[in-house]
Amino acid sequence: MSAAGVDPSVYLERLARVRAAMAEHDVDTLLLSVGHDLPYLTGYTAMPLERLTMLVVPRAGDATMIIPALEAPRVREVPGAFELLAWGETQNPTALVAGLAAGSGRVAVGDQMWARFLVELLPQLPGAEFTRAVDVVGPLRMSKDQAEIDALTAAGAAVDRIAAELQRGEIPLVGRTEADVSAHLSRRIIEEGHDKVNFAIVAAGENAASPHHHAGSRLIRENEIVLCDFGGTMAGYCSDTTRCVFTGEPSADVAEAYAVLHEAQRVGVAAGAVGTPCEEIDRATRKVIDDAGYGEYFIHRTGHGIGMEEHEDPYIVEGNQLPLEAGHAYSVEPGIYIPGRWGMRLEDIVVATADGPVALNNSDHGLVGVDA
Amino acid sequence: MSAAGVDPSVYLERLARVRAAMAEHDVDTLLLSVGHDLPYLTGYTAMPLERLTMLVVPRAGDATMIIPALEAPRVREVPGAFELLAWGETQNPTALVAGLAAGSGRVAVGDQMWARFLVELLPQLPGAEFTRAVDVVGPLRMSKDQAEIDALTAAGAAVDRIAAELQRGEIPLVGRTEADVSAHLSRRIIEEGHDKVNFAIVAAGENAASPHHHAGSRLIRENEIVLCDFGGTMAGYCSDTTRCVFTGEPSADVAEAYAVLHEAQRVGVAAGAVGTPCEEIDRATRKVIDDAGYGEYFIHRTGHGIGMEEHEDPYIVEGNQLPLEAGHAYSVEPGIYIPGRWGMRLEDIVVATADGPVALNNSDHGLVGVDA
Repeated sequence: MSAAGVDPSVYLERLARVRAAMAEHDVDTLLLSVGHDLPYLTGYTAMPLERLTMLVVPRAGDATMIIPALEAPRVREVPGAFELLAWGETQNPTALVAGLAAGSGRVAVGDQMWARFLVELLPQLPGAEFTRAVDVVGPLRMSKDQAEIDALTAAGAAVDRIAAELQRGEIPLVGRTEADVSAHLSRRIIEEGHDKVNFAIVAAGENAASPHHHAGSRLIRENEIVLCDFGGTMAGYCSDTTRCVFTGEPSADVAEAYAVLHEAQRVGVAAGAVGTPCEEIDRATRKVIDDAGYGEYFIHRTGHGIGMEEHEDPYIVEGNQLPLEAGHAYSVEPGIYIPGRWGMRLEDIVVATADGPVALNNSDHGLVGVDA
Repeated sequence: MSAAGVDPSVYLERLARVRAAMAEHDVDTLLLSVGHDLPYLTGYTAMPLERLTMLVVPRAGDATMIIPALEAPRVREVPGAFELLAWGETQNPTALVAGLAAGSGRVAVGDQMWARFLVELLPQLPGAEFTRAVDVVGPLRMSKDQAEIDALTAAGAAVDRIAAELQRGEIPLVGRTEADVSAHLSRRIIEEGHDKVNFAIVAAGENAASPHHHAGSRLIRENEIVLCDFGGTMAGYCSDTTRCVFTGEPSADVAEAYAVLHEAQRVGVAAGAVGTPCEEIDRATRKVIDDAGYGEYFIHRTGHGIGMEEHEDPYIVEGNQLPLEAGHAYSVEPGIYIPGRWGMRLEDIVVATADGPVALNNSDHGLVGVDA
């Protein structure tokens, strides 16, 4: 769908910056299809179908959006940004792309483009070297402008209201299935103004030890931890928060581990000064958990960037030496997972600013006990 | 998630057939990630994330599922089918894949794999020629067994119940927005037993002239056509049907065109005898519409295969000479779209059988008038 509310000049300005980045990275042609780079640059989101939609951006000259004829009416044209080239059902769209990209030395392709289309392009562009478009578009998308930060802030506030309901016991847990609570959270995500639910993980007791547990038919019982990790997309930007509650009085082992997790997350948020390498934030949270003896149970990175996508650059992971800049938005979400027993995670979205890190999630960070 | 209800022997048998197809197509290694080939062969669906999940199937020898360590607990292992190789957050998963695929001459990759991973693999497998996995797995998936046909039949019956409600006027239209009716259909899709809504297109009046219109804030009025194209996934298999209703008494031009559409769709369904090339079905529907003078307004192919995916082989399109086999399942969905005025489409899912084509959708095929 087109992004009806956005001033077209935004897209022209972004395309100009992308072309500058293409020159810097010696990229001759940029190819964007399914994924978020395309709407970032044009306002149009490609349908994830076998019928190819692809924006072809040469370093100089006009961009062309190859689009199935039957999707063409959905595109809101942006004068000066791109031409539409509609293809019919018996045409070969990758041949149209290859014609426009002919002679390119380096071709950058979007991460989420279907591999099928790259496989088809390989023999049609025999001299080309393929690279990832994220190198060109990613740095632009990583640095959010004020309108984007406002959108992330609004989405964050919406999920905070749901987290607060959970913590006040207004979302019943004991005796319901995880799937039922997940559906409840999903409904609330939409009611709070999101256009789309991205996920609503509900994992009780031992299931919480699987970080991406699929909410299922297990009944939530008294005296166990319930991990809820949920978010959606509101006006094009994502929310994502994790809170754990306990259906009763936490046992000593859980309470002790949670205190460590809480401190690790606080330290991780506080570490987000502009100029700090991303991996240092990961190290900061990990050190707290390691020092307390839970290191082997923190089995994932500390966080991920967020924006139009749930997960995007910058990743908060060992090995990522990228220094934080003002406008970077990312999650800080350490976890401790004891297989077969329980798991816990605590997650906020954070925006780096010149005045220091600003958390966009502000619901209670403690392990709140809810009445069984 | 794993497909808990399926006998593991199904996966072993499918893998054996895939290996035979690999030999036939001279494919040394098959790489499957996001998409439906992976659950078809293993019962496990990869999450569409930047963390790579990939099944590596050599033509001979054991298959390996490369999986993020934090997803590993979600996999239901199938003894004898594949080994799990969990990777940690600081490892490079494509290097693990390249190691397993080293020396391969031809490598077949899943259509929906993220292009990012293929871009990363290209320099790591310099001698390899890449092809589409659909050539290897597609023919297997195209020929549905009885359990699969039963699943498609059940899903089809579920959306037929919703179409009947629409035609009986039990789903209010006039005065509601397209988006509101779309949400109503979506809720009913879930209530009727689907696990997931795939789409619920609602397009009124001139909006119906855009085949993939996104249901929006336009109010549905009296005396116009309302096109509803909806479906979901139930027990792993998809439904998909389109019916149009008219909020009042159809005008003469609409009624006349609909009679042509109705006949074209009937002829298309009837054309589906085993052995018929797919393009002949497209030609059959198109001839009826061409002969009546609406040819330029039928702007898409006649149909698509359906199964675990909404759109898969065989495509019912000019140029596809594949002969129908018993067990092929596909849509027959001609349409007539007059830009700026109205559009109409009529769609059933059909299964080819030795006794002739069987339509899985049986709600009223007429342009039913509903009370305004």
